[in-house]
Amino acid sequence: MGSFRQLEGHEMGRLSLADHAGSQRHPITLVLYNIRSMWNVGAMFRSADAAGIEKIVITGYTARPPRKEIDKVALGAQETVCWEYCEDPVEAVDRLKGEGKRVFGLEIAENSRPYTALKPGDFPAALIVGNEVDGIGDDLLAICDDVLEIPQYGTKHSLNVAVAAGVALFECVRIFRTGG
Amino acid sequence: MGSFRQLEGHEMGRLSLADHAGSQRHPITLVLYNIRSMWNVGAMFRSADAAGIEKIVITGYTARPPRKEIDKVALGAQETVCWEYCEDPVEAVDRLKGEGKRVFGLEIAENSRPYTALKPGDFPAALIVGNEVDGIGDDLLAICDDVLEIPQYGTKHSLNVAVAAGVALFECVRIFRTGG
Repeated sequence: MGSFRQLEGHEMGRLSLADHAGSQRHPITLVLYNIRSMWNVGAMFRSADAAGIEKIVITGYTARPPRKEIDKVALGAQETVCWEYCEDPVEAVDRLKGEGKRVFGLEIAENSRPYTALKPGDFPAALIVGNEVDGIGDDLLAICDDVLEIPQYGTKHSLNVAVAAGVALFECVRIFRTGG
Repeated sequence: MGSFRQLEGHEMGRLSLADHAGSQRHPITLVLYNIRSMWNVGAMFRSADAAGIEKIVITGYTARPPRKEIDKVALGAQETVCWEYCEDPVEAVDRLKGEGKRVFGLEIAENSRPYTALKPGDFPAALIVGNEVDGIGDDLLAICDDVLEIPQYGTKHSLNVAVAAGVALFECVRIFRTGG
């Protein structure tokens, strides 16, 4: 048994907005493709802020800020996380590859590899998450450099997309910072 | 560029309900304390199913199944994940310790350790997640064996509780299966 006390906000050493603007982010981009739920979009903004990633790229019919349904879940992260919109996900992937990033789909797919198997050489990385029901789709998967899968051990076939994105983003951060 | 194709449900090798009932789960218990949102409760049932953990213990004023608001997010996981209710979280923690489990709070706290620093000897483990605004609280933290913290790199002070639980559960599974 230890001596534990919750920390107050001011004790947490979080970045101020000014410091944040100039800080080094983890070289990870999160790509949202046809995300239907604004709750999920807002939660992923919040996770992107917490994981300290570079940016979010919003594609397809995914809603984008400002929308009150996103903002009330993002709790301000929609203002601090860099994001851009590119309607065509194929064009978005091409641009990310042009920036030197390795593009990974997060999906349960043939020839996928475990999400825990990334290597430091895989960064800078972009991670695509897809629609809550239809996922990423084979056309978009076909232009990914690789597909990452979160192994699942239950009776169901999927995680909530915002939970899956959080699991994968924090694992990317862990691997990037520790070398695996 | 690889050859990737999304798998259909029947190709995923998920457990049938009959096989699942007899299968070996990961020795991890998730404790919910005063979770306000039924969306969050439902999402955590879904994550608990996917991560293949032993059970959920619901405490405090957290809503419990069957509730349609939980069920529509849990997507059936409320039927496949073992769960029990114990109103008093202190009594729940005492029972879990009596079952030989190490009890961890998931919180940003003094003397916490990174959630990636668990060791195989820390299992069987119970992980407590707390209220969306107030967290676990110092009284309950005081009786935890240890506190785990997800390092955060942004301007905000927290993750959504269901995302945080998902990140921590899958890291527990990774460590348990690989030895760290």
